[in-house]
Amino acid sequence: MGLSERDVINALQKIFATSDSRVRVGIGDDAAVVTTQSQSIITSDMAVEDVHFKLEWSSAFDIGRKITAANVADILSMGAQCDYLTASVALTGDETMQWIENLARGMKHEADAAGALIVGGDIARGPKIVISMTAVGSSQSPILRSGAKVGDSLYLSSLTGWSAAGLELLTREVSINSAIAERALSEFSAPTLDYSSDFSGATAMADVSDSVLIQAEQIAEASGVQLVLDQVLISQASEFKDLSILADELKVDVFQWILGGGEDHVLLATGESLPGIRIGSVVAGSGIAGVDMKKAPVSWSHFH
Amino acid sequence: MGLSERDVINALQKIFATSDSRVRVGIGDDAAVVTTQSQSIITSDMAVEDVHFKLEWSSAFDIGRKITAANVADILSMGAQCDYLTASVALTGDETMQWIENLARGMKHEADAAGALIVGGDIARGPKIVISMTAVGSSQSPILRSGAKVGDSLYLSSLTGWSAAGLELLTREVSINSAIAERALSEFSAPTLDYSSDFSGATAMADVSDSVLIQAEQIAEASGVQLVLDQVLISQASEFKDLSILADELKVDVFQWILGGGEDHVLLATGESLPGIRIGSVVAGSGIAGVDMKKAPVSWSHFH
Repeated sequence: MGLSERDVINALQKIFATSDSRVRVGIGDDAAVVTTQSQSIITSDMAVEDVHFKLEWSSAFDIGRKITAANVADILSMGAQCDYLTASVALTGDETMQWIENLARGMKHEADAAGALIVGGDIARGPKIVISMTAVGSSQSPILRSGAKVGDSLYLSSLTGWSAAGLELLTREVSINSAIAERALSEFSAPTLDYSSDFSGATAMADVSDSVLIQAEQIAEASGVQLVLDQVLISQASEFKDLSILADELKVDVFQWILGGGEDHVLLATGESLPGIRIGSVVAGSGIAGVDMKKAPVSWSHFH
Repeated sequence: MGLSERDVINALQKIFATSDSRVRVGIGDDAAVVTTQSQSIITSDMAVEDVHFKLEWSSAFDIGRKITAANVADILSMGAQCDYLTASVALTGDETMQWIENLARGMKHEADAAGALIVGGDIARGPKIVISMTAVGSSQSPILRSGAKVGDSLYLSSLTGWSAAGLELLTREVSINSAIAERALSEFSAPTLDYSSDFSGATAMADVSDSVLIQAEQIAEASGVQLVLDQVLISQASEFKDLSILADELKVDVFQWILGGGEDHVLLATGESLPGIRIGSVVAGSGIAGVDMKKAPVSWSHFH
């Protein structure tokens, strides 16, 4: 590539530099040395060009934000705080230094919002851009998928479906000039994580990276319960009307986006009196119930 | 791909399954939950098909071993114990389940040797195979690159150059039927890490992933000293004669491999009375000295 590995690493090192006392050794040695708790939460997520993102669809900054958010969301969904991130990136050699720096700035932006520090990574050459991140977090009492109890309610931290709507606009190349369409495109490019709501009281929790249906099935299976979704409750969510207007314009069942879409990085949680949107309840049994869509949900597995 | 993401994850989950008490939650939830010390060491390494490895050169098992060893070596070079690993893999869809399982078994083999557990990861689709791993280790007193002191000696945990020799045999498509050539090919495909030698007394240490010269320069710069390499000392190493025979056959300056080759994952350390091979000394000054090669060393930067 025109840029040397050394130049790229130096640029990233500047962007990710920190004086945070949690980091004893940052980027530059063989490994980072950081302060950790007695229990750590570890997760990894990989994004591949033209599979998870397209350069013509998203800015470098948004691509950096999105993959970082995906990693952070997996930590948040354990009821944990995200402390550290590493970022390994395969570059084709066609990127400008500005594009690479903007990718890093997007990562840093999302890491900052989460209170996390980017402490390491790797640069490689590849035929397509591949970004792989690992997040290390901390929690004394992580919230697993297995803790849902009969009698709990089911919650979403915010309405899902926006990312799927954005993807639909992009793949069908439909141009709708509205604030609602803008919102969908923006959520697809870089989802907004909710760092303010307190889900520490949840009995079970998962990040909606695949779809509400898939993650609900996983919680149901891990907890040995049935999750009953209530589409009437969902339709009472404050954002439902906006998303429905967009779905109608595109002649899509809005519940396909909400329940079958993915990559929203919204929390799906069970418990009592949680924040967000109540969308159902936990009963004895197995699997999920209460779903009545016009068409079977589109799986996002082709896009993972 | 013919194989579903779910099938692949299920197979990997079985291979990486552990009953180790350090892991409270393994693969299967949004993130792993593991026991950590107050200070953790974190590093990431990425390997790309046809850049870092070729399917016609290496078995899936060896590819898995090699990328795992690269990550573990970065932890060992901090004087730390490697505790946990995550593995994210982009697959093209042309792999058989057997190939994928052998990749995972190679990772597990090397992780087992290091006393580390594979606790998470991600599967994606991509145009080439990309493997990204992150290692989390522990040490109360990590050994940095910055601790070399004037008066120290310089050591290699074992002779470098074997991996470069193997690469040369493969790229020049030279077939030499000897145990020495076999050794070089084997070290290229999956380097042997030395888990037994005690380098805890080192003042500075680095993993020779790029080359002895590059890592020596980094230690010299970080420590504010000069590293004087002694080619006579190096030529007294027990394996030097074997490697020289191979170099002569290929008409290569053996010091090009030893000092300029890379991906040996041997430890380069400063200190007193360390194990391994004494190859020089630390003096006042900057940079490196004592190197007299017939040709400037080939940088491995094209192969990273």
